[in-house]
Amino acid sequence: MDFDALFTDQLDALREEGNYRIFAELERRAGAFPRARSHDEDAPDEVTVWCSNDYLGMGQHPKVVAAMTDAVEKHGCGAGGTRNISGNTHQHALLEAELADLHGKEGALLFTSGYVSNWAALSTLGARLPDAVILSDEKNHASMIEGIRHSRADKVIWKHNDPEDLDRKLSALPSNATKIVAFESVYSMDGDICPMQEIVEVAERHGAMTYLDEVHAVGMYGPRGGGVSEELGLADRITLIEGTLGKAYGVVGGYITGSAALCDFIRSFASGFIFTTALPPAVAAAARMSIAHLKESATERMRQREQVEKLRARLDELGIPHLPNASHIIPVMIKDPVKCRQLADILMQDFGIYVQPINYPTVPKGTERLRFTPGPLHSDRDIEYLVQALATLWKRCAIAHAVA
Amino acid sequence: MDFDALFTDQLDALREEGNYRIFAELERRAGAFPRARSHDEDAPDEVTVWCSNDYLGMGQHPKVVAAMTDAVEKHGCGAGGTRNISGNTHQHALLEAELADLHGKEGALLFTSGYVSNWAALSTLGARLPDAVILSDEKNHASMIEGIRHSRADKVIWKHNDPEDLDRKLSALPSNATKIVAFESVYSMDGDICPMQEIVEVAERHGAMTYLDEVHAVGMYGPRGGGVSEELGLADRITLIEGTLGKAYGVVGGYITGSAALCDFIRSFASGFIFTTALPPAVAAAARMSIAHLKESATERMRQREQVEKLRARLDELGIPHLPNASHIIPVMIKDPVKCRQLADILMQDFGIYVQPINYPTVPKGTERLRFTPGPLHSDRDIEYLVQALATLWKRCAIAHAVA
Ligand SMILES: Cc1ncc(COP(=O)(O)O)c(C=O)c1O
Ligand SMILES: Cc1ncc(COP(=O)(O)O)c(C=O)c1O
Repeated sequence: MDFDALFTDQLDALREEGNYRIFAELERRAGAFPRARSHDEDAPDEVTVWCSNDYLGMGQHPKVVAAMTDAVEKHGCGAGGTRNISGNTHQHALLEAELADLHGKEGALLFTSGYVSNWAALSTLGARLPDAVILSDEKNHASMIEGIRHSRADKVIWKHNDPEDLDRKLSALPSNATKIVAFESVYSMDGDICPMQEIVEVAERHGAMTYLDEVHAVGMYGPRGGGVSEELGLADRITLIEGTLGKAYGVVGGYITGSAALCDFIRSFASGFIFTTALPPAVAAAARMSIAHLKESATERMRQREQVEKLRARLDELGIPHLPNASHIIPVMIKDPVKCRQLADILMQDFGIYVQPINYPTVPKGTERLRFTPGPLHSDRDIEYLVQALATLWKRCAIAHAVA
Repeated sequence: MDFDALFTDQLDALREEGNYRIFAELERRAGAFPRARSHDEDAPDEVTVWCSNDYLGMGQHPKVVAAMTDAVEKHGCGAGGTRNISGNTHQHALLEAELADLHGKEGALLFTSGYVSNWAALSTLGARLPDAVILSDEKNHASMIEGIRHSRADKVIWKHNDPEDLDRKLSALPSNATKIVAFESVYSMDGDICPMQEIVEVAERHGAMTYLDEVHAVGMYGPRGGGVSEELGLADRITLIEGTLGKAYGVVGGYITGSAALCDFIRSFASGFIFTTALPPAVAAAARMSIAHLKESATERMRQREQVEKLRARLDELGIPHLPNASHIIPVMIKDPVKCRQLADILMQDFGIYVQPINYPTVPKGTERLRFTPGPLHSDRDIEYLVQALATLWKRCAIAHAVA
C-alpha cells in the first residue's frame, strides 16, 4: 500500500488552500532578544522577532539562565524517570510549592507542557467525576477541546465570553450533574479578556466548578504575576487555575493549581501525568527563578505595557487597523491565508521583521492575521521601524488594489 | 458543591486497595549517579537508585551536560513559542536530522515527550486516514492506548507478541481498510522483546503500516543505538519508529521518524504537535549530543549488559525469582501492592536502596513488582549489596511465613 500517497493528498489540499505551514528557522541568542539569527535563505541574517510568546524576555534573563545552567551542572540533564518511578526530584517539589503560592492555592501539579496539563486535567475530571458535564467557551484552546473530547463527558459549548449564555446553558442541566465551566482569561489570538467576575458568579450560582486557563496571563497580570484572576482578586473563587511555564516565564512546562485533594486526584489518575518522563530538574529550577523574579519585579510588566501602548498608538496614527482589546496582543487582521503569508514573507525578507502568519487551524479560516506581541525589550526604534515597514506595505497594497 | 469530597472518595478507594502512590523525593547529583540525595525523612541521606530509566547514565555525561549548559548560555532557556510561531530553532532542525539519520529514515519530528509523540501521531493517523483500523498489541503503553482511543478509529487488540493472532485479526479486516499495526520493541514492565521479524512479515503480507515504539530500546540496542529494529536490520521495513529522549538519552522529549511525507503529515495535522511550546533549544542540543555519543560509543551499552548479567546471575544463585527476558530490565514479582510497597520501604529505609514499587495502573493488579534497571554506573559492589539486602528480606519473609 502506498501510504505516502495518502499523506501527500492531504498535504496538497492544505497547500491549495494556502494553509500549508512553513516554519521560520531561528537561532535565539541569549542577551540579544528580540533579535535572532535567521537560518532561512531568503531572510537577512539578523531579524527582529515580533511574534514571540516569551512575552517578557525572561527566557534570556540572566537570573533564569544562571538558575538553569547551575541546576544542569548540579543535577545533570534529565529527571531519569516518571514522577512515580525515580523522576520526582526536590526541584519539582520546590516548583510546585512556588506555583501553589503564586495562585494562593493549597496544591499544584506540574506537567510536561501547558497542552498536556489541560488535556490531562480535563480528560480526567470529565471521565471520573459522576455525571460530568463540561461547559466550554466556544473559543477555548485546542488543548482544552481535546481534553474534553478525550474525557467523553457531555460537553456544552457556550458563546464566547458570554456569561448570560453560560447561565442559560447551566440552567438547562439536570441538578445531579457535576458541572465544570472551562474558560480562559486572555484569549491569545484575539487578545480579549474574559468577564471573569460574571462568569465566576454564574458558576457559583449553579454550584459549578470553574476551570481557568491563564496561559497567556501568568507572569503578566496581577501584582505578583498571578494572572487576571489575581488582578481581579478572584483566584480563591476559582476551582482550578491552569498555566504554562513556556510563555511569560520563558522556559517550558505546564501546571494546574487548586485544592490539595484536586491536585492529588489528578496526580493519581491522569494518564498524561503518570505515564511520562518528568521535566528536567533544571527546567523546574529555571521556571521557579522566573516566577520568583516576576513576583517581586513589576519592571518587565510595566515596560511591556508601555511598548504595547506605543505600538497601538502608532498603528492608529498610520491608519493600520488592528483588533482592539485590553491585553498585550495586537492582531492585525488580513483575512486571507495567501495574502497573510505574502505580507509576512515581505516583512521578513525585505525588512528583517519576523511575524509568523497565523492561519487555520490556529484561527478560523477567513480570520488570518499577523499577531504582534511587543515586549519590554522592543525599543522605541524597533516599534518605529515596524510601523514604517507596515505603512510601506499597506501603501503598496493600496496601489496594487487601485491598478488591479 | 463539595468537590473535594468527590476527589477524596476516589483517593480513599486507591488507599484501601494499596494503590495510592507516594513519590520518593530525590536530588540527583551530576557525577554521582546512581547515588542520589534523598529528601524523604525516613530514608538515609544518600541512596542508590535502582529503578532509573536514565538507563546509561547519559543524563550526567560530561559531554551532554556541557552541551546543555553551553546551549542555555548561548540561546537562553525556552523556545519562546510553538514550532510554527517563533519557536522553531536551528537546534530543533539539527536534532531532527540526527534522529532521521539514527533510524535511517527521511524525516523526523520532535514532540515535547514520548507520551505526546505516541498520542499525537496515533490519534492523527487513526483520525485522518481513510477507514483506518489500528491493530494494537494488548500490552501497549498508555500513551499509545490513549492516542488510539482519541483517534476514534476502529481498534483491534491482538495477543501480546503473537504474530499468528495478528495475522488472524488482519485477515478478518475488509480490504479497503487502512491497517496500522502498533507495537513496542521492548516492553518496559516485563522486559520482553517482540518478535519483530515475524510481526513485520505479517504486516507486509496484509499491506499494513507498522508503528513501532522503541522508547525502551533507543540508545541501548543496535550498533548505533537505533533500537531493536536497527539490531535486526528491520528499520527500513517499518513505517514509523517512535522514541524518547528521556530514557537512555538522559534528557527529555519524544519523536517519530519515517518518510518525509509521513512526518510532514503529522507536523501539519497533529494537534499535540501544533498547539504547544517547542522544547527548549538547549534540551534539543543536549539530546543531540547524547545520541551522537551513543552512535559512536558502545562502551555504555556493553558495560550495561555486563551489569545486567551479573545481577541476574547473583539473583539466581540466591534463589530470588525474577522474570526472564532478553532485555536490560529485571522484574522481581511480588504480586501484591501492599507487600510490594513494604519491601520497597524497607529497602529504602534500612538499606538506602531505592526501587519504586510498581503497581496498578502501571501494571495489572496482582502483578505488582520491583523493577531493577542495572546500568553501566552500578558497580559490582552495588550489585552485591543489593542482592544481599534482597536475600535478607527474602529470609525475613520466609520466617514470617513460617510463623504466621
Ligand atoms: C490558551 C492556551 N492554553 C494552553 C496552551 C498550551 O501551553 P504550552 O505551550 O505550555 O503547551 C496554549 C499555547 O500553546 C494556549 O494558547
Ligand atoms: C513504551 C513507552 N512509550 C512511551 C513512553 C512515554 O515516553 P516519555 O517518558 O518520553 O513521555 C513510555 C514511558 O514513559 C513508555 O514506557
